[in-house]
Order: sequence, then C-alpha cells, then structure tokens
Amino acid sequence: MATVAVQSFVSAPLQIPNVTQFKIGICQLIVTTEKSANIFNARSLIQTAAEQGATLILLPEMWNCPYSTDLFAKFAEEFSDIDSAPSLLMLSEVASSLGVTIIGGSIPEKDAGQLYNSCPVFGPNGELKAKHRKIHLFDMGKPLPGEVQFKESVNISAGEKPTVVDTDFGRIGIGICHDIRFPELAMSYSARGAHLICYPGAFNMSTGATLWELEQRTRAVDNQLYVASCSLSRDSASSYMIWGHSTVVGPMGKIIATTGHEEAALIAEIDYAAIQWTSSCRESLPLESQKRNDIYQFVDLLRESLNS
Amino acid sequence: MATVAVQSFVSAPLQIPNVTQFKIGICQLIVTTEKSANIFNARSLIQTAAEQGATLILLPEMWNCPYSTDLFAKFAEEFSDIDSAPSLLMLSEVASSLGVTIIGGSIPEKDAGQLYNSCPVFGPNGELKAKHRKIHLFDMGKPLPGEVQFKESVNISAGEKPTVVDTDFGRIGIGICHDIRFPELAMSYSARGAHLICYPGAFNMSTGATLWELEQRTRAVDNQLYVASCSLSRDSASSYMIWGHSTVVGPMGKIIATTGHEEAALIAEIDYAAIQWTSSCRESLPLESQKRNDIYQFVDLLRESLNS
Repeated sequence: MATVAVQSFVSAPLQIPNVTQFKIGICQLIVTTEKSANIFNARSLIQTAAEQGATLILLPEMWNCPYSTDLFAKFAEEFSDIDSAPSLLMLSEVASSLGVTIIGGSIPEKDAGQLYNSCPVFGPNGELKAKHRKIHLFDMGKPLPGEVQFKESVNISAGEKPTVVDTDFGRIGIGICHDIRFPELAMSYSARGAHLICYPGAFNMSTGATLWELEQRTRAVDNQLYVASCSLSRDSASSYMIWGHSTVVGPMGKIIATTGHEEAALIAEIDYAAIQWTSSCRESLPLESQKRNDIYQFVDLLRESLNS
Repeated sequence: MATVAVQSFVSAPLQIPNVTQFKIGICQLIVTTEKSANIFNARSLIQTAAEQGATLILLPEMWNCPYSTDLFAKFAEEFSDIDSAPSLLMLSEVASSLGVTIIGGSIPEKDAGQLYNSCPVFGPNGELKAKHRKIHLFDMGKPLPGEVQFKESVNISAGEKPTVVDTDFGRIGIGICHDIRFPELAMSYSARGAHLICYPGAFNMSTGATLWELEQRTRAVDNQLYVASCSLSRDSASSYMIWGHSTVVGPMGKIIATTGHEEAALIAEIDYAAIQWTSSCRESLPLESQKRNDIYQFVDLLRESLNS
C-alpha cells in the first residue's frame, strides 16, 4: 500500500462533432504471407466500403502481416518515414484520394530497436493524425483449452498511453484486441469525451466465441457510447484461428451490424444522437452523474486537462 | 481538476474458502401488498431451495414490500432491533433452523429518520453478519420509452460503502439492482478478493431485456469471478413491470442457470476451481497482472488494508 497524489478530473463534456450521422465501413480482411498482396487487398476493400458510402473506415489488427510473433519484425514499418513504409503510404494515399478517415487497424511498428503493435489514423487529406500502440499485450498464462500458446510480449513492446483522436466523425478512442478486456481504458475514453471506441482485433476461436461480442456490448453500455470492432477474417489453414465477427454496437448495447468469419466490407449507420440527444441513453440513465466518487475513483494518470 | 492523495492497493490474494463447491439457491419471489404474506412466501421458497441442496440462498430486491417508493416507509424495519423486525426475524430463524447462509435480497431499512434499500446477510447460526445499503439509487432522467418515471432518491438515502462478507462459501460482494451498472463497484470487490458477487435486483422490462444478462456476464468476465442475481418475479397487474430472469454466471461468462419471469427456486452448482485453479480463467488469462497501473488506477477510497 502506498499513498500517491493523483489529479482528479470530471468528465469532459460531450462535444457535437462536425458530422453526427454517417456510415462506418469495417474491412474484415484475410491476411497472406505476401505483404504486397495484403496491401493490395486492404486498399481494394477500403474502396469497396467507400463506394458503399462509408466515410470512416476501420481495419483489423495486424492486417499487413500474418499474426505470428516471429514475423512481426520482417513486416514492420517506421511511422516516422511514411514514404518508405508501403502499408502506411497506401493508407495515406487512399484516405486522400477517397476523402475518407481511416482508423488503420494495426501493423508492426519499428522504432528505436523496439517493435510495437500500432494503429495509424489518417485524415481525409492523407495526413497521419494519430497512432495508438497496443497497451495490453496478449500474454496467456497456461494455454487456453484447444488454443496454441501465445505470448505477444516476447517480441512486442507495450504502448504507454491511451489514444483519443478528434476527427470529423467525433472523438474516437482506440484499443487494439486485448485492450478491450480492460474496462479502465474504455472508462478513460468515455471520461475524455469519446463518441466512439474502435477496437481492431484478432480474437481466437475460444475467447472469440466467449468474449468478443460480450466485451464490445459492455464497453458500449457501461460508457454509453458507440463501439466498432474489426477482426481479421478466418484462415482455416493457419495455426492461429481467428474468430472474425466484426461488429458495431450502439450506446444501449444493440448490435447495429455484424458479420461472420469470411472477408467482408461491413457497413453500419452511426447516429450520435442516440448517445445523448434522444431519451433512451444518457438523458434517461445519467450514469456519469450517478458515479460515487466519494467511494471510488477512476484515475487516468496521463490525462492532461479537463478538456482532453 | 484537483490533486487528491489516495491509497493505492494491490489486489487481495484470493483465499480458498471453507467450501469451494456448493449449490446456490435463488428465490425469485412474487410480492404482494401484504407484508406477512410476503414473509410467509419467502420462507417457503427458502425451504424449497434448501430441500434441493442449496446451502447459500439469495433473495431479490424489496421482497417484503411492493416496489413503489411511497410504500417503503410503511414496510421498513430497523436492523438494530431484529426481534421487532418480522422480515429480518424470519430470515434469522430460517437460516438457523436450516443451517444455511442467506444473502437476504433487500427490504426498506429505517434508521435515524432515513430510509435505505438494504440487504441483510445471515449466517447459519442466525446472526446478522453484514448489511449492504444500495449505493447507486435508480433515478431516471427522462422516463425510458414505455416505462413509468422512477426516482428512488425521493424516498431512499444512498449507502455509503461497498460490502464484502466472509462466509463459508467464500468472500461475497453485494450490489443491489442499479449498483450493477457501475463497473467500479465490481472492480472494488474483485480487488478485495471476492469469489462471488450477489446482485438482488428488480430490473424493469426495457432495461431488463437490454441490460440485465449483459451486465451480469460482463461483471463476471471482467473480474473473473462468479455472479449471481435474484430478481422479483413479474406481477402483470403492477405498474412497475419486472423483467425477472434471475441468473448465475461463471467466471468466463457462461450462464450456469437462469429462469423466466415466474416464481422459481433456481438451483445452480458453483465450483470456485473455475476461477483460479483450472486452466480456463485466471491462470490462462491473468488480467489482474496485466492491468496498467502506470496509465490508470482504480482507487477504492474506503478500503482499509491490503487484505480487506
């Protein structure tokens, strides 16, 4: 037990973003051992989603690289030099040419001798707006029944901070796969005024069937905001079998759109009025004001100001 | 923004209780306007559950009193004088005569001019072991679509602390109804070493259908412990329509037992080995050790020591 001094914040007020009603496109991709094929495939599915009206597009975790810890170094790119990073360059170009915002799933990032599992965010003019490094690495204790052992931290370093990014489509918090298991991260995004949390992921068959949809729905209802997830699609030949089932969930826990385990461009309508300005969510059930900060406090150690 | 000094705890180690495998009995009761009939009915269902082997018994929220804020005062009892409190006296007597532990749902409590929504806990020798006062009162903002307005705080005062009670059947955390909507309370119980959280409740039709099962499952999986809920049964003639669906959930989110909206003595087998000592939960997925207390901290302001 130690006594620590912390900064206590109230929640940031929920701002009305430039666009409150829009279509999100979720690109559930298959991944091969050929990086160039993965980039081509991702670009193609982003275009398909945009043609169906999506203006915010979400990719899955590790979409340019087989989900195998020994391959991350080979497929990694440096975020500081986009012109030499083919996966990032494609995202920048396609965001700009289509005029869309892309929450770019994740790829292996190399930086100063370390590898990270990192999500790039590109705005509609092609600029890299933000980067989220996976905070909670997926390290199994014992292997789950029927699953191969997996210890991501052998090759990957963990991110050091939550990431919210302000876009035309609201304030968006980002978590990568295992990050979704931690209520605290979603709570920090809600307190920072997020409208939507995007979770690129690659849950396996056992945790996928058991937890994937449940965790998305609960992060949405406990924080009264939208959640969107994007999984890789399943490759039956792989040793790491992916659950799939990318999903969009509304702030009352309703599944707005979902899919199976095949490749898909999933399109869902988001309307932020459902969070605050209709009677079914925050106005009827003002959970935030009912929290008992005299009994417990959630402390976001890295938050810098009331409005961030 | 303020800087506050708080005590930072690691989680209490999970102890092995006297009994690790047992049957829990969930008494989903109907409530009438006659207090004596409600007491008779509750005693009868407790006996039914015990006859089926239940040694830990859970009752619903406000089982001795119609769920109507204007009636709470009339039906209230003083917990300091059990001999003059017919609902509490029955629980004490039946716990002792059957040798069972009872998590006594809730009844209106009167104390020093205030009313509380309070859960009594009786041990197998009939003593009152603990009391939980509902911390988060159910105050709607706007009424939910199709539901009557409800503002519990008009008549009821809120409890001021979490409640864990050590029983032969493990360390048990208690939350009453709307308490389940707050992840922080369940997190405090998990950090305090609880094996099981019991939620007496009375969710209505809209939040029941949308949230009741979801919240139970997520409190279980996020905290890797058992959750048991006990609802009132539905009275079609009442203005406040109860959802029902009392449920027991395992630490990986599996529904072990559930029921509909009629009166029922629901029996479920609990085995705490599923929390820690088999490969499917904490050993495979050691979430607690993966929390990032350098980024966020959950602070339990009223916890007094490492092992409480």
